[in-house]
Amino acid sequence: MAVETSGAGFVDLTGEVGKFIRDAGAKEGAVTLFIRHTSASLTIQENADPSVLADLTTALDRLAPESAGWTHDAEGPDDMPAHVKTMLTGTSLHVPVLNGELALGIWQAIYLIEHRSRPHRREIVLQFIGEAK
Amino acid sequence: MAVETSGAGFVDLTGEVGKFIRDAGAKEGAVTLFIRHTSASLTIQENADPSVLADLTTALDRLAPESAGWTHDAEGPDDMPAHVKTMLTGTSLHVPVLNGELALGIWQAIYLIEHRSRPHRREIVLQFIGEAK
Amino acid sequence: MAVETSGAGFVDLTGEVGKFIRDAGAKEGAVTLFIRHTSASLTIQENADPSVLADLTTALDRLAPESAGWTHDAEGPDDMPAHVKTMLTGTSLHVPVLNGELALGIWQAIYLIEHRSRPHRREIVLQFIGEAK
Repeated sequence: MAVETSGAGFVDLTGEVGKFIRDAGAKEGAVTLFIRHTSASLTIQENADPSVLADLTTALDRLAPESAGWTHDAEGPDDMPAHVKTMLTGTSLHVPVLNGELALGIWQAIYLIEHRSRPHRREIVLQFIGEAK
Repeated sequence: MAVETSGAGFVDLTGEVGKFIRDAGAKEGAVTLFIRHTSASLTIQENADPSVLADLTTALDRLAPESAGWTHDAEGPDDMPAHVKTMLTGTSLHVPVLNGELALGIWQAIYLIEHRSRPHRREIVLQFIGEAK
Repeated sequence: MAVETSGAGFVDLTGEVGKFIRDAGAKEGAVTLFIRHTSASLTIQENADPSVLADLTTALDRLAPESAGWTHDAEGPDDMPAHVKTMLTGTSLHVPVLNGELALGIWQAIYLIEHRSRPHRREIVLQFIGEAK
Protein backbone atom coordinates (compact mmCIF):
# COMPACT_ATOMS: atom_id res chain seq x y z
CA MET A 1 0.00 0.00 0.00
CA ALA A 2 1.01 3.65 -0.39
CA VAL A 3 0.85 6.27 2.34
CA GLU A 4 0.98 10.00 1.63
CA THR A 5 2.69 11.74 4.54
CA SER A 6 2.39 15.43 5.31
CA GLY A 7 5.93 15.87 6.64
CA ALA A 8 7.65 14.70 9.81
CA GLY A 9 5.41 12.84 12.25
CA PHE A 10 3.41 9.70 12.96
CA VAL A 11 0.73 8.22 10.69
CA ASP A 12 -1.60 5.61 12.24
CA LEU A 13 -1.86 2.57 9.95
CA THR A 14 -3.81 0.31 12.31
CA GLY A 15 -7.13 0.66 10.52
CA GLU A 16 -5.65 -0.12 7.12
CA VAL A 17 -3.73 -3.13 8.43
CA GLY A 18 -6.94 -4.42 10.05
CA LYS A 19 -8.75 -4.04 6.72
CA PHE A 20 -5.94 -5.89 4.96
CA ILE A 21 -6.22 -8.96 7.18
CA ARG A 22 -10.03 -8.97 6.90
CA ASP A 23 -9.84 -8.72 3.10
CA ALA A 24 -7.26 -11.54 3.11
CA GLY A 25 -9.58 -13.73 5.18
CA ALA A 26 -6.79 -14.16 7.73
CA LYS A 27 -7.58 -16.38 10.72
CA GLU A 28 -4.43 -17.44 12.62
CA GLY A 29 -0.90 -16.28 11.86
CA ALA A 30 0.88 -12.95 11.53
CA VAL A 31 0.86 -9.89 9.36
CA THR A 32 4.17 -8.28 8.38
CA LEU A 33 4.80 -4.75 7.19
CA PHE A 34 7.91 -3.68 5.28
CA ILE A 35 8.62 -0.07 4.32
CA ARG A 36 10.61 0.36 1.12
CA HIS A 37 12.46 3.51 2.24
CA THR A 38 15.44 4.55 4.37
CA SER A 39 14.16 7.89 5.68
CA ALA A 40 10.80 6.73 7.09
CA SER A 41 10.20 3.79 9.41
CA LEU A 42 7.65 1.69 11.28
CA THR A 43 6.89 1.34 14.98
CA ILE A 44 4.22 0.16 17.40
CA GLN A 45 3.43 2.75 20.05
CA GLU A 46 0.82 4.14 22.39
CA ASN A 47 -2.42 5.23 20.73
CA ALA A 48 -4.02 7.03 23.69
CA ASP A 49 -2.33 10.34 24.43
CA PRO A 50 -1.04 12.40 21.45
CA SER A 51 1.60 13.95 23.72
CA VAL A 52 3.41 10.57 23.66
CA LEU A 53 3.91 10.88 19.89
CA ALA A 54 5.07 14.49 20.28
CA ASP A 55 7.64 13.42 22.88
CA LEU A 56 8.80 10.49 20.73
CA THR A 57 9.46 12.99 17.92
CA THR A 58 11.42 15.15 20.36
CA ALA A 59 13.41 12.12 21.51
CA LEU A 60 14.36 11.18 17.95
CA ASP A 61 15.34 14.80 17.18
CA ARG A 62 17.65 14.79 20.20
CA LEU A 63 19.21 11.44 19.30
CA ALA A 64 19.79 12.54 15.69
CA PRO A 65 19.91 16.34 15.54
CA GLU A 66 20.23 18.25 12.27
CA SER A 67 23.11 20.25 13.71
CA ALA A 68 25.41 17.26 14.35
CA GLY A 69 27.87 18.02 11.58
CA TRP A 70 26.91 15.21 9.16
CA THR A 71 29.08 14.73 6.08
CA HIS A 72 26.05 13.58 4.04
CA ASP A 73 24.18 16.86 3.55
CA ALA A 74 23.55 17.02 -0.21
CA GLU A 75 19.87 16.14 0.23
CA GLY A 76 19.17 18.72 2.93
CA PRO A 77 19.78 18.98 6.68
CA ASP A 78 16.86 16.67 7.53
CA ASP A 79 18.08 13.76 5.36
CA MET A 80 20.91 12.28 7.41
CA PRO A 81 18.95 12.54 10.70
CA ALA A 82 16.15 10.69 8.87
CA HIS A 83 18.51 7.81 8.05
CA VAL A 84 19.71 7.61 11.68
CA LYS A 85 16.12 7.63 12.99
CA THR A 86 15.19 4.88 10.54
CA MET A 87 18.13 2.77 11.73
CA LEU A 88 17.11 3.24 15.38
CA THR A 89 13.45 2.33 14.81
CA GLY A 90 13.19 -0.13 11.94
CA THR A 91 12.00 -1.12 8.51
CA SER A 92 9.62 -3.98 9.29
CA LEU A 93 6.98 -4.97 11.84
CA HIS A 94 5.44 -8.27 12.83
CA VAL A 95 1.96 -8.40 14.40
CA PRO A 96 0.23 -11.66 15.37
CA VAL A 97 -3.26 -12.39 14.07
CA LEU A 98 -5.41 -14.47 16.42
CA ASN A 99 -8.95 -15.53 15.60
CA GLY A 100 -9.05 -13.13 12.65
CA GLU A 101 -8.01 -10.05 14.65
CA LEU A 102 -4.76 -8.13 15.11
CA ALA A 103 -3.44 -9.25 18.52
CA LEU A 104 -2.37 -5.75 19.53
CA GLY A 105 -2.44 -4.69 23.15
CA ILE A 106 -5.18 -2.29 24.14
CA TRP A 107 -2.85 0.74 24.01
CA GLN A 108 -0.94 -0.27 20.86
CA ALA A 109 -1.24 1.19 17.36
CA ILE A 110 0.84 0.63 14.22
CA TYR A 111 2.59 3.78 12.99
CA LEU A 112 4.59 4.92 10.02
CA ILE A 113 7.10 7.58 11.14
CA GLU A 114 7.93 10.12 8.47
CA HIS A 115 11.39 11.50 9.26
CA ARG A 116 11.71 13.96 6.36
CA SER A 117 10.39 17.52 6.74
CA ARG A 118 8.42 17.56 3.52
CA PRO A 119 5.50 15.30 2.44
CA HIS A 120 6.44 11.99 0.82
CA ARG A 121 4.67 9.05 -0.78
CA ARG A 122 5.76 5.89 1.11
CA GLU A 123 5.30 2.31 -0.09
CA ILE A 124 4.66 -0.49 2.39
CA VAL A 125 4.49 -4.19 1.57
CA LEU A 126 1.84 -6.02 3.64
CA GLN A 127 1.87 -9.81 3.89
CA PHE A 128 -0.15 -12.33 5.84
CA ILE A 129 1.48 -15.63 6.79
CA GLY A 130 -0.78 -18.28 8.26
CA GLU A 131 -4.13 -19.97 8.00
CA ALA A 132 -7.12 -18.42 6.20
CA LYS A 133 -10.71 -18.70 7.34
CA MET B 1 2.34 -16.17 27.97
CA ALA B 2 2.41 -13.75 30.89
CA VAL B 3 5.55 -12.48 32.63
CA GLU B 4 5.50 -10.84 36.04
CA THR B 5 8.28 -8.28 36.20
CA SER B 6 9.75 -6.89 39.42
CA GLY B 7 10.42 -3.39 38.07
CA ALA B 8 12.95 -2.02 35.61
CA GLY B 9 15.41 -4.60 34.26
CA PHE B 10 15.93 -7.67 32.11
CA VAL B 11 13.97 -10.95 32.41
CA ASP B 12 15.47 -13.99 30.64
CA LEU B 13 12.76 -15.77 28.61
CA THR B 14 15.01 -18.25 26.80
CA GLY B 15 13.98 -21.26 28.86
CA GLU B 16 10.27 -20.61 28.40
CA VAL B 17 10.64 -20.04 24.66
CA GLY B 18 12.59 -23.31 24.41
CA LYS B 19 9.80 -25.10 26.26
CA PHE B 20 7.22 -23.55 23.92
CA ILE B 21 8.89 -24.90 20.78
CA ARG B 22 9.34 -28.34 22.36
CA ASP B 23 5.68 -28.44 23.41
CA ALA B 24 4.70 -27.33 19.89
CA GLY B 25 6.76 -30.15 18.37
CA ALA B 26 8.61 -27.58 16.27
CA LYS B 27 11.26 -28.95 13.90
CA GLU B 28 12.31 -26.38 11.25
CA GLY B 29 11.11 -22.78 11.05
CA ALA B 30 11.05 -19.82 13.37
CA VAL B 31 9.49 -18.71 16.62
CA THR B 32 8.22 -15.16 16.96
CA LEU B 33 7.55 -13.19 20.14
CA PHE B 34 5.31 -10.13 20.30
CA ILE B 35 4.88 -8.03 23.46
CA ARG B 36 1.48 -6.38 23.81
CA HIS B 37 2.78 -3.26 25.59
CA THR B 38 4.44 0.07 24.82
CA SER B 39 6.53 0.49 27.98
CA ALA B 40 8.33 -2.87 27.94
CA SER B 41 10.17 -4.45 25.03
CA LEU B 42 12.09 -7.48 23.73
CA THR B 43 15.74 -7.94 22.84
CA ILE B 44 18.39 -10.59 22.27
CA GLN B 45 21.55 -9.92 24.24
CA GLU B 46 24.55 -11.45 25.96
CA ASN B 47 23.76 -14.05 28.60
CA ALA B 48 27.22 -14.42 30.13
CA ASP B 49 28.20 -11.40 32.21
CA PRO B 50 25.44 -9.67 34.24
CA SER B 51 27.40 -6.41 34.01
CA VAL B 52 26.42 -6.24 30.33
CA LEU B 53 22.74 -6.03 31.30
CA ALA B 54 23.51 -3.40 33.94
CA ASP B 55 25.36 -1.29 31.35
CA LEU B 56 22.56 -1.73 28.81
CA THR B 57 20.15 -0.34 31.41
CA THR B 58 22.51 2.59 31.97
CA ALA B 59 22.72 3.19 28.23
CA LEU B 60 18.92 3.28 27.87
CA ASP B 61 18.64 5.63 30.87
CA ARG B 62 21.11 8.01 29.23
CA LEU B 63 19.36 7.87 25.85
CA ALA B 64 15.94 8.53 27.46
CA PRO B 65 16.45 10.25 30.81
CA GLU B 66 13.55 11.02 33.15
CA SER B 67 14.76 14.61 33.44
CA ALA B 68 14.42 15.46 29.74
CA GLY B 69 11.41 17.70 30.07
CA TRP B 70 8.78 15.41 28.55
CA THR B 71 5.29 16.85 28.00
CA HIS B 72 3.68 13.44 28.67
CA ASP B 73 4.14 13.12 32.44
CA ALA B 74 0.66 12.25 33.73
CA GLU B 75 1.62 8.61 34.33
CA GLY B 76 4.82 9.36 36.25
CA PRO B 77 8.37 10.41 35.33
CA ASP B 78 9.34 6.87 34.23
CA ASP B 79 6.50 6.49 31.70
CA MET B 80 7.69 8.62 28.78
CA PRO B 81 11.27 7.29 29.00
CA ALA B 82 9.73 3.80 28.91
CA HIS B 83 7.97 4.59 25.60
CA VAL B 84 11.21 5.95 24.09
CA LYS B 85 13.17 2.87 25.22
CA THR B 86 10.50 0.59 23.74
CA MET B 87 10.71 2.45 20.42
CA LEU B 88 14.53 2.10 20.37
CA THR B 89 14.51 -1.62 21.14
CA GLY B 90 11.36 -3.23 19.76
CA THR B 91 8.10 -5.04 20.18
CA SER B 92 8.80 -8.32 18.40
CA LEU B 93 11.57 -10.87 17.96
CA HIS B 94 12.25 -13.59 15.41
CA VAL B 95 14.40 -16.59 16.30
CA PRO B 96 15.10 -19.46 13.87
CA VAL B 97 14.37 -23.03 14.93
CA LEU B 98 16.69 -25.62 13.37
CA ASN B 99 16.38 -29.34 14.03
CA GLY B 100 13.97 -28.69 16.91
CA GLU B 101 16.26 -26.24 18.73
CA LEU B 102 16.43 -22.44 19.03
CA ALA B 103 19.27 -21.40 16.71
CA LEU B 104 20.66 -18.84 19.14
CA GLY B 105 24.35 -18.09 19.25
CA ILE B 106 26.24 -19.43 22.23
CA TRP B 107 26.20 -16.05 24.02
CA GLN B 108 22.63 -15.07 23.12
CA ALA B 109 19.56 -15.07 25.35
CA ILE B 110 16.04 -13.75 24.79
CA TYR B 111 15.08 -10.95 27.18
CA LEU B 112 12.02 -8.95 28.11
CA ILE B 113 13.10 -5.45 29.19
CA GLU B 114 10.80 -3.87 31.76
CA HIS B 115 11.15 -0.10 31.43
CA ARG B 116 8.71 0.97 34.18
CA SER B 117 9.96 1.35 37.76
CA ARG B 118 7.22 -0.73 39.34
CA PRO B 119 6.35 -4.42 38.75
CA HIS B 120 4.01 -5.16 35.85
CA ARG B 121 2.30 -8.16 34.31
CA ARG B 122 3.35 -8.36 30.65
CA GLU B 123 1.66 -10.44 27.94
CA ILE B 124 3.68 -11.95 25.12
CA VAL B 125 2.27 -13.79 22.09
CA LEU B 126 4.45 -16.74 21.04
CA GLN B 127 4.02 -18.33 17.62
CA PHE B 128 5.84 -21.02 15.69
CA ILE B 129 5.87 -20.88 11.91
CA GLY B 130 7.24 -23.91 10.09
CA GLU B 131 7.34 -27.67 10.00
CA ALA B 132 6.46 -29.86 12.97
CA LYS B 133 8.22 -33.09 13.89
CA MET C 1 26.07 -18.24 6.02
CA ALA C 2 29.30 -16.85 7.44
CA VAL C 3 30.61 -13.33 6.90
CA GLU C 4 34.22 -12.34 7.56
CA THR C 5 34.29 -8.72 8.68
CA SER C 6 37.36 -6.50 8.56
CA GLY C 7 36.55 -4.50 11.72
CA ALA C 8 33.91 -1.91 12.51
CA GLY C 9 31.72 -0.94 9.59
CA PHE C 10 28.99 -2.01 7.17
CA VAL C 11 29.07 -5.13 4.96
CA ASP C 12 26.54 -5.28 2.11
CA LEU C 13 24.79 -8.67 2.09
CA THR C 14 22.18 -7.88 -0.58
CA GLY C 15 23.84 -9.90 -3.34
CA GLU C 16 24.20 -12.99 -1.16
CA VAL C 17 20.62 -12.78 0.08
CA GLY C 18 19.43 -12.46 -3.53
CA LYS C 19 21.44 -15.55 -4.45
CA PHE C 20 19.94 -17.43 -1.49
CA ILE C 21 16.36 -16.82 -2.61
CA ARG C 22 17.18 -17.74 -6.21
CA ASP C 23 18.87 -20.97 -5.09
CA ALA C 24 15.84 -21.72 -2.86
CA GLY C 25 13.50 -21.24 -5.83
CA ALA C 26 11.58 -18.66 -3.78
CA LYS C 27 8.54 -17.11 -5.49
CA GLU C 28 6.25 -15.33 -3.00
CA GLY C 29 6.90 -14.87 0.71
CA ALA C 30 9.69 -13.43 2.81
CA VAL C 31 13.32 -14.05 3.64
CA THR C 32 14.51 -13.64 7.21
CA LEU C 33 18.05 -13.07 8.47
CA PHE C 34 19.17 -13.75 12.02
CA ILE C 35 22.67 -12.93 13.30
CA ARG C 36 23.94 -15.25 16.03
CA HIS C 37 25.97 -12.56 17.85
CA THR C 38 25.50 -9.71 20.33
CA SER C 39 28.22 -7.34 19.12
CA ALA C 40 27.25 -7.18 15.44
CA SER C 41 23.81 -6.49 13.99
CA LEU C 42 21.67 -6.20 10.86
CA THR C 43 20.02 -3.19 9.20
CA ILE C 44 18.52 -2.03 5.94
CA GLN C 45 19.92 1.30 4.80
CA GLU C 46 20.74 3.51 1.86
CA ASN C 47 22.99 1.96 -0.77
CA ALA C 48 23.74 5.06 -2.83
CA ASP C 49 26.09 7.43 -1.04
CA PRO C 50 28.88 5.91 1.11
CA SER C 51 28.87 9.03 3.27
CA VAL C 52 25.52 7.85 4.70
CA LEU C 53 27.21 4.74 6.10
CA ALA C 54 30.06 6.82 7.50
CA ASP C 55 27.58 9.13 9.25
CA LEU C 56 25.58 6.17 10.59
CA THR C 57 28.81 4.86 12.15
CA THR C 58 29.42 8.29 13.67
CA ALA C 59 25.85 8.37 15.01
CA LEU C 60 26.26 4.97 16.70
CA ASP C 61 29.62 6.00 18.17
CA ARG C 62 27.99 9.09 19.68
CA LEU C 63 25.04 7.13 21.07
CA ALA C 64 27.35 4.50 22.61
CA PRO C 65 30.80 6.03 23.15
CA GLU C 66 33.74 4.00 24.42
CA SER C 67 34.41 6.64 27.06
CA ALA C 68 31.05 6.34 28.82
CA GLY C 69 32.34 4.62 31.94
CA TRP C 70 30.98 1.11 31.31
CA THR C 71 31.36 -1.44 34.10
CA HIS C 72 31.71 -4.28 31.56
CA ASP C 73 35.20 -3.63 30.19
CA ALA C 74 36.97 -7.00 30.49
CA GLU C 75 36.71 -7.64 26.75
CA GLY C 76 38.10 -4.26 25.68
CA PRO C 77 36.72 -0.71 25.41
CA ASP C 78 34.86 -1.47 22.16
CA ASP C 79 32.88 -4.42 23.56
CA MET C 80 30.19 -2.75 25.66
CA PRO C 81 29.50 -0.06 23.00
CA ALA C 82 29.09 -2.96 20.55
CA HIS C 83 26.37 -4.51 22.75
CA VAL C 84 24.54 -1.18 23.01
CA LYS C 85 24.71 -0.63 19.25
CA THR C 86 23.39 -4.15 18.65
CA MET C 87 20.46 -3.49 21.01
CA LEU C 88 19.64 -0.22 19.19
CA THR C 89 19.73 -1.76 15.70
CA GLY C 90 18.71 -5.42 15.87
CA THR C 91 19.41 -9.08 15.45
CA SER C 92 16.99 -10.04 12.68
CA LEU C 93 15.59 -8.68 9.43
CA HIS C 94 12.52 -9.48 7.38
CA VAL C 95 12.44 -8.76 3.64
CA PRO C 96 9.45 -9.59 1.41
CA VAL C 97 9.99 -11.67 -1.73
CA LEU C 98 7.60 -10.86 -4.56
CA ASN C 99 7.63 -12.66 -7.90
CA GLY C 100 10.98 -14.25 -7.07
CA GLU C 101 12.75 -10.98 -6.24
CA LEU C 102 13.67 -9.18 -3.00
CA ALA C 103 11.07 -6.41 -2.65
CA LEU C 104 13.61 -3.82 -1.51
CA GLY C 105 13.14 -0.18 -2.34
CA ILE C 106 15.42 1.24 -4.99
CA TRP C 107 17.74 2.84 -2.39
CA GLN C 108 17.73 -0.06 0.09
CA ALA C 109 20.48 -2.57 0.78
CA ILE C 110 20.83 -5.24 3.49
CA TYR C 111 23.81 -4.66 5.78
CA LEU C 112 25.64 -6.45 8.54
CA ILE C 113 27.10 -3.88 10.94
CA GLU C 114 30.30 -5.00 12.64
CA HIS C 115 30.56 -3.11 15.93
CA ARG C 116 33.87 -4.56 17.19
CA SER C 117 37.16 -2.93 16.17
CA ARG C 118 38.85 -6.13 15.05
CA PRO C 119 37.80 -8.54 12.27
CA HIS C 120 35.30 -11.24 13.22
CA ARG C 121 33.63 -14.24 11.61
CA ARG C 122 29.83 -13.72 11.90
CA GLU C 123 27.20 -16.41 11.39
CA ILE C 124 23.81 -15.52 9.90
CA VAL C 125 20.83 -17.87 9.57
CA LEU C 126 18.88 -17.29 6.34
CA GLN C 127 15.38 -18.68 5.93
CA PHE C 128 12.71 -18.40 3.25
CA ILE C 129 9.07 -18.69 4.27
CA GLY C 130 6.52 -18.91 1.49
CA GLU C 131 5.75 -20.46 -1.86
CA ALA C 132 8.42 -21.90 -4.15
CA LYS C 133 8.40 -21.63 -7.94
